[in-house]
Amino acid sequence: MRDVSIIGIGQVAVGEHWDKSLRELGYLALSAAMRDAKVERIDSLFVGNMLAGELTGQEHIGAMIADFAGLRGVEAVKVEAACGSGAASLRMGYITVAGGMSDIVACVGVEKMTDRPNDTVTSALAMAADNDYEALHGLSFVSINALLMRRYMHEHGYRKEDFAPFAINAHANAVNNPYAMFHHPITSRQFAESKMIADPVSLLDSSPIADGAACVILAPTAIAREFTEKPVRIRASTIATDSVAVHDRRDPLFLEGGAISAQKAYAMAGVGPGDIDLFEVHDAFTIMSALSLEAAGFAARGKGVALAAEGQINLGGRIPITTMGGLKARGHPVGATGMYQIVEVATQLRGEAGHNQVPSAHLGMAQNIGGSGATVVTTIMEGN
Amino acid sequence: MRDVSIIGIGQVAVGEHWDKSLRELGYLALSAAMRDAKVERIDSLFVGNMLAGELTGQEHIGAMIADFAGLRGVEAVKVEAACGSGAASLRMGYITVAGGMSDIVACVGVEKMTDRPNDTVTSALAMAADNDYEALHGLSFVSINALLMRRYMHEHGYRKEDFAPFAINAHANAVNNPYAMFHHPITSRQFAESKMIADPVSLLDSSPIADGAACVILAPTAIAREFTEKPVRIRASTIATDSVAVHDRRDPLFLEGGAISAQKAYAMAGVGPGDIDLFEVHDAFTIMSALSLEAAGFAARGKGVALAAEGQINLGGRIPITTMGGLKARGHPVGATGMYQIVEVATQLRGEAGHNQVPSAHLGMAQNIGGSGATVVTTIMEGN
Repeated sequence: MRDVSIIGIGQVAVGEHWDKSLRELGYLALSAAMRDAKVERIDSLFVGNMLAGELTGQEHIGAMIADFAGLRGVEAVKVEAACGSGAASLRMGYITVAGGMSDIVACVGVEKMTDRPNDTVTSALAMAADNDYEALHGLSFVSINALLMRRYMHEHGYRKEDFAPFAINAHANAVNNPYAMFHHPITSRQFAESKMIADPVSLLDSSPIADGAACVILAPTAIAREFTEKPVRIRASTIATDSVAVHDRRDPLFLEGGAISAQKAYAMAGVGPGDIDLFEVHDAFTIMSALSLEAAGFAARGKGVALAAEGQINLGGRIPITTMGGLKARGHPVGATGMYQIVEVATQLRGEAGHNQVPSAHLGMAQNIGGSGATVVTTIMEGN
Repeated sequence: MRDVSIIGIGQVAVGEHWDKSLRELGYLALSAAMRDAKVERIDSLFVGNMLAGELTGQEHIGAMIADFAGLRGVEAVKVEAACGSGAASLRMGYITVAGGMSDIVACVGVEKMTDRPNDTVTSALAMAADNDYEALHGLSFVSINALLMRRYMHEHGYRKEDFAPFAINAHANAVNNPYAMFHHPITSRQFAESKMIADPVSLLDSSPIADGAACVILAPTAIAREFTEKPVRIRASTIATDSVAVHDRRDPLFLEGGAISAQKAYAMAGVGPGDIDLFEVHDAFTIMSALSLEAAGFAARGKGVALAAEGQINLGGRIPITTMGGLKARGHPVGATGMYQIVEVATQLRGEAGHNQVPSAHLGMAQNIGGSGATVVTTIMEGN
């Protein structure tokens, strides 16, 4: 198989884009990435998206975005794995280029959520959970995460305020990211006083829904330097799954899909957690940051929160996470999020992260999670 | 790249499965195909589906079906390209095996439509069209096809009854297909007297919505005979797109996506239309059969209906189509349909089509269409 590199990246600022349709968002990210890669054509387009049907009344967005971007005729499909859709589309692109089926491939993550009432969005998001056995009984994603966080606190002896560093770090990093939704830092006092949503999950434990789109262009590494001076190699891209319903898992506090996906990625890249310079976690809720750090081997069981308390997740720490704001402060347009993570890691590895640059960043990793861990996509990337 | 073969097939009888959930349907087809291939594990699962979110309240069905089938942990994603989703999932599986990323891959097409009211289903199906510029203005899929059929009749001088052979042939072939929804033949008189839905499209021009699931297991051809005595080689699998809105096309009566997809497939396989022994068309409406035959090169422009009138599309004709009943009489569970077509071509190439066997069938082709031709997936398969 061929080695694969990212030759172009593009993104739309995450926010409430009431003046832009889903196809426009997808086009803006795609065209920005194509300009960055200096390509005028692509061979295949993979669009990661979860809720276009439910929230915009539009399926079939692979062909739609291809046409709107002036690429009519090109191969194009949508890839869905709940909130893991973004990075899942990268995995499809990676397979396609690595296997030799296409040379220049675009992977777009796109979501449009803010045009609809909040209860509609909450119901739609619950489709990432098990509808028959979770959602229909009243569980929303906030309440599932509240149950997980409560259990984690009980098992491992933490207090709610111990989760504050995840949110504070994310907001601090978003300040300098022009594509982030929020640009205000938060304090531990603000975290402590934050409005309770589903005890113990409060507003500042939670990522905001949003509109957004991000894109990478892939090519064989052998020709990557024809397009860019800063190709980012994809050293690994893996997907693993778990039960959709949390109650069906052997241990609800361990993301088995996350562990399998990470182990496969480490094996594929021939590296271990100690080699990774930064890690974009799927911090939909603070508890998910802890569980992802533990599943990926950056912290022992029950020690993810302690790692954050020690400041090891901050820029300059042992394993910086959410370096551009994370889901918490960059924003969480669900099907696009995984692609934002990839673009942000690539930005770091290209040395273009500005004030947020992780010094000497060489190997970066992203873990994009669908549902409460039922789909986990791990991507390891390498800079020059 | 590696040569790829189908080593197992499985399907659920198309119908109104009010006693079976979507995950059960997917599992039944997947497990049947795995038994047929005599495999107990797979490396990757691709699930083709269009409307699970809208009609069953469940996204994230890749992980869900994997878990329900006892394959927890395996790579799994959903692939969506409107009614072209089924064969699009095969294309993803084909890329994955051909490129060497996985050895044993399952591709499932699944849809559950009959639990919801008809108007809900009609609205959901319209998400395959352009929501902003077609559906919101009142166009449903029936009315889009009515406009196309009316224009075709005007341009090429046909009457409505000239389309009857498509429906009659499909129903005649479904009689002997145990997996078909309808087992009754129809006459030209019944066709002529059939209830008008959207002039000139009547009930017997139209395929029925349904529940169903079908699956194939893929493996490298080099090891295919370890699993089956009757491997079916995939000689080509291609996707091409067109504008989603019909009014944006250069010529609404020519499926450019169908032509590009077919030409790429012929080039990939090194064959032409004259080499194909049977052709599963996407006869969602009779007009689509004509347009697909023309786009794929089996008939000149405006001659698709004439080909049917000459009996050339029947079993024993020059290019038999809908040999197991087609969308019209086997039924059209939208995201599953493309996979039923693949399974049916494989059944013919394995010589297992019973009364409907196309003599000496060696090369078979399927064309699965999303929307009114905005996504077209062409698959060419070869028997022993």
